[in-house]
Amino acid sequence: MLSPLLKEIRHNPLLWLLVFVPVVFAAERLAPDAHTLLFLLSVLAIVPLAGLLSHATESVAAKTGDAVGGLLNATLGNLTELVIALTALRAGQYMLVKASIAGAIVTNTLFMLGASFLLGGLKHRVQEYNRAGARFQSALLFLAVVALLVPSAIADVDRAPGTVTQALSLGLAVLLIVAYGLGMLFSLKTHRELFASAEHAEEGEAPWPMGTALVTLVGVTVLVALVSEVFVESVQEAAVSFGMTPAFVGFIVVALVGGAAEMASAFSGARKNRLDLSVGIALGSASQIALFVAPVLVLLSYVLGPAPMSLEFWPGAVSMMLISTLTATLVTNSGRSAWFVGVLLLMVYMVFAMTLYLLPPQVS
Amino acid sequence: MLSPLLKEIRHNPLLWLLVFVPVVFAAERLAPDAHTLLFLLSVLAIVPLAGLLSHATESVAAKTGDAVGGLLNATLGNLTELVIALTALRAGQYMLVKASIAGAIVTNTLFMLGASFLLGGLKHRVQEYNRAGARFQSALLFLAVVALLVPSAIADVDRAPGTVTQALSLGLAVLLIVAYGLGMLFSLKTHRELFASAEHAEEGEAPWPMGTALVTLVGVTVLVALVSEVFVESVQEAAVSFGMTPAFVGFIVVALVGGAAEMASAFSGARKNRLDLSVGIALGSASQIALFVAPVLVLLSYVLGPAPMSLEFWPGAVSMMLISTLTATLVTNSGRSAWFVGVLLLMVYMVFAMTLYLLPPQVS
Amino acid sequence: MLSPLLKEIRHNPLLWLLVFVPVVFAAERLAPDAHTLLFLLSVLAIVPLAGLLSHATESVAAKTGDAVGGLLNATLGNLTELVIALTALRAGQYMLVKASIAGAIVTNTLFMLGASFLLGGLKHRVQEYNRAGARFQSALLFLAVVALLVPSAIADVDRAPGTVTQALSLGLAVLLIVAYGLGMLFSLKTHRELFASAEHAEEGEAPWPMGTALVTLVGVTVLVALVSEVFVESVQEAAVSFGMTPAFVGFIVVALVGGAAEMASAFSGARKNRLDLSVGIALGSASQIALFVAPVLVLLSYVLGPAPMSLEFWPGAVSMMLISTLTATLVTNSGRSAWFVGVLLLMVYMVFAMTLYLLPPQVS
Repeated sequence: MLSPLLKEIRHNPLLWLLVFVPVVFAAERLAPDAHTLLFLLSVLAIVPLAGLLSHATESVAAKTGDAVGGLLNATLGNLTELVIALTALRAGQYMLVKASIAGAIVTNTLFMLGASFLLGGLKHRVQEYNRAGARFQSALLFLAVVALLVPSAIADVDRAPGTVTQALSLGLAVLLIVAYGLGMLFSLKTHRELFASAEHAEEGEAPWPMGTALVTLVGVTVLVALVSEVFVESVQEAAVSFGMTPAFVGFIVVALVGGAAEMASAFSGARKNRLDLSVGIALGSASQIALFVAPVLVLLSYVLGPAPMSLEFWPGAVSMMLISTLTATLVTNSGRSAWFVGVLLLMVYMVFAMTLYLLPPQVS
Repeated sequence: MLSPLLKEIRHNPLLWLLVFVPVVFAAERLAPDAHTLLFLLSVLAIVPLAGLLSHATESVAAKTGDAVGGLLNATLGNLTELVIALTALRAGQYMLVKASIAGAIVTNTLFMLGASFLLGGLKHRVQEYNRAGARFQSALLFLAVVALLVPSAIADVDRAPGTVTQALSLGLAVLLIVAYGLGMLFSLKTHRELFASAEHAEEGEAPWPMGTALVTLVGVTVLVALVSEVFVESVQEAAVSFGMTPAFVGFIVVALVGGAAEMASAFSGARKNRLDLSVGIALGSASQIALFVAPVLVLLSYVLGPAPMSLEFWPGAVSMMLISTLTATLVTNSGRSAWFVGVLLLMVYMVFAMTLYLLPPQVS
Repeated sequence: MLSPLLKEIRHNPLLWLLVFVPVVFAAERLAPDAHTLLFLLSVLAIVPLAGLLSHATESVAAKTGDAVGGLLNATLGNLTELVIALTALRAGQYMLVKASIAGAIVTNTLFMLGASFLLGGLKHRVQEYNRAGARFQSALLFLAVVALLVPSAIADVDRAPGTVTQALSLGLAVLLIVAYGLGMLFSLKTHRELFASAEHAEEGEAPWPMGTALVTLVGVTVLVALVSEVFVESVQEAAVSFGMTPAFVGFIVVALVGGAAEMASAFSGARKNRLDLSVGIALGSASQIALFVAPVLVLLSYVLGPAPMSLEFWPGAVSMMLISTLTATLVTNSGRSAWFVGVLLLMVYMVFAMTLYLLPPQVS
């Protein structure tokens, strides 16, 4: 039953990194204080697991028909990010959770989209893609960023610290999930034909049989959860030893690690002149994190976390999410792209990365 | 002479609420301290009066030819809001005046537009409308919001509190009225054909004869002014008894009450697949309040108010106006709509309403 | 060899102002303390010199072929602004340098573009222009403004005042110059045909012979530098005697003086219904200042200035640059224009000018 899985591992060099999964568990037992080593090993182990998770989700989705499949893709598409964030949530590291949410939004809209435009543009002179999908996703993102902006904006005037912000965060979380649900109803059901060309599942690789896919989905999720624990425990001290601020690590490193598998798909789509796919993955993943992962984490914090988590971000993170969304909206408005559009998005990303790298650590 | 008026009252259930006009005056005499009751009665009385006022304005406009009629619509279209705000101005309740201005802009661009898109979209799959009109109105709105943003932005650095802000507000008020006048010249005179399909007056109901219309216009304005006085006096204490903050009441309740008649027109237009009409009413009304009502109130505060009123809003109100305008601009850019576009606008509105509802009362 | 130069001077009334060049030097020697007079004379002398510089640059560019010529135009097109700013830099007047950078961006995107639309629109009913060029320039500008926004945003949280901001400014300056270089590669080399109609050099006037152009370029640059010194020394005290704040002078007066020659070209292009030219000059000049002049000044401040200059602007300047860029982006998105579009841009400019005029002087 696992032979398609093994076959895929043989043909996909990225999956050879799976060897680091046992290595990280061994290292944790043998050298529990070698934080920098454990951090590096856990990063190397999460990347191939995220790839397997992504393929398993798509395989299940492909077998269950369009509507259910779309729903599955839309809820489990960022399972890796969700599991990492849940581990940090249970450990009470809310700052890391929030940084990874904000970072995933910024990284997907700027880095993943920008690199796709650049890689595609270097091979193809001018590329066109379906504007409807890009507009839909960036409108969803815009709504989410407005919602995430509010708790931070009122934090100053909130006299009874926390209580109003927390009540508001809870209300906003519910609102965002409702908007996400209605958005799926719109894009998968009532107005499906508008988003015609952005098929997600059929990206070259054959889907696995249902059994393999389900077993992989469950098994790999458990592995990601276990590796995430090593990752979350080691990330802060590793950051110090690399001279990085925690804000930089949460924003940039976690987002790049969690999104590595999706990036591989987006970039390969861009090279094949299937920019619909790349734009769909980049913006879809960003809006999924903003409208589904983030509010789900708020709701779960009431059950799993040491205390309720709010949607209050530090002002810099809010500005970066707002600018990223605005940039992606303006850039995807025309439905055309050339290499320089990618350069611009990457430059904005580098401005943010440079700022976070240089910021004094007290800020995060 | 009043028979068309009576005929309309018989056929329009909304106008049956007119019975509350005498009731509110009676109640004020009998129970002047029953603030919550007076508040509710005055709301119920203002809604049908606003409807009559709106129809009377359009009837006069229809009889006086395009240019003068357009001018009348453009100046008297928000007469209800103007009269309510003037009553609050005379009572020195500048916070309520400003909250109702900001609230009217936000409510028109998000709630009225969003509900129009949603109601229209539930009946018609995809709706198209004239982009030129929407672009023109949202450009005007954008200018106004930039102008309204400045006094709040400099309030921090203004050492001699008030004087610079006041001088600036006066200058900005003049600038906005000039821009509004030039905008009318552009849309009603020099480039009329660009806005062709957004006819305002012909919305199904037959215009009244001139005499009826003028008498109604004057008489109802007086009634609105009298009811507004009860409304303004009772609103603060009623808010407390409902557990609402004054910011919520000014922003949400006053705006919904004052705009009820226009909303009825906009929604019915959307159901009839005449989205040009709905977009024109929603954005036109918002830009009229920003570029005409608000500056006129500043100028009149020198004559009628206890002290000059500035254009300085609290930062949250500025952000909400800015986000509303940006959202409306981005959303109307394509000239097409489906039900989910309406959902998105309503969601942003709900984010704001929820925030204002939860905000501690000291903020307003 | 100088006969084409003399011929041009005879036919161009603007160049008759050249008589003020010797006058300003004489006046400085005779009345070194007459600051207001020296200020006025230096303004009158810089305007025609900027015109000559602009024509000389274009003549050299026209003779050296498309790629090199485009490069020359792109680097020397704002030579006047650069020389004035360098003089202020050497004098350690960093506030004036920054105000003139921010002011040039705001003035080009709002005043130059707006007046072009208005002047063109008064003569031609609706004008069309190449959107690709406008989009490219406003995307570059948007990137630059995001980069300029960051050092101001983190200035609050920067505990070790200056050091992080300075390191960040240096990094951003390098990033902006790289983006500018890649932008030139894109617009002049790899995707030239997208920007086809925005030819810069061929605007009616015949190019000078190479020798004349080069001599003029060098000679006039020296003269601008000398006059700038008088200008920079006198501007502050002249501002006080005119009742202007230094912020107003840097933002409005310096930008108008430095850009006078380009404005003449942009306005004449608009009247001739060649709006591509006007939009190209206005937005091109703004993005050149943001992505080339500003970072070059930061780099040169390490060599020429008394201390390194950062890219930290006062918050009001950042907001104004952001709003200007956003306004220009929204407005040029359609590729069409009528007179009222120009009015809107000019109105936003007047809002800013009025604010800066009224601001108490401590702010700058």
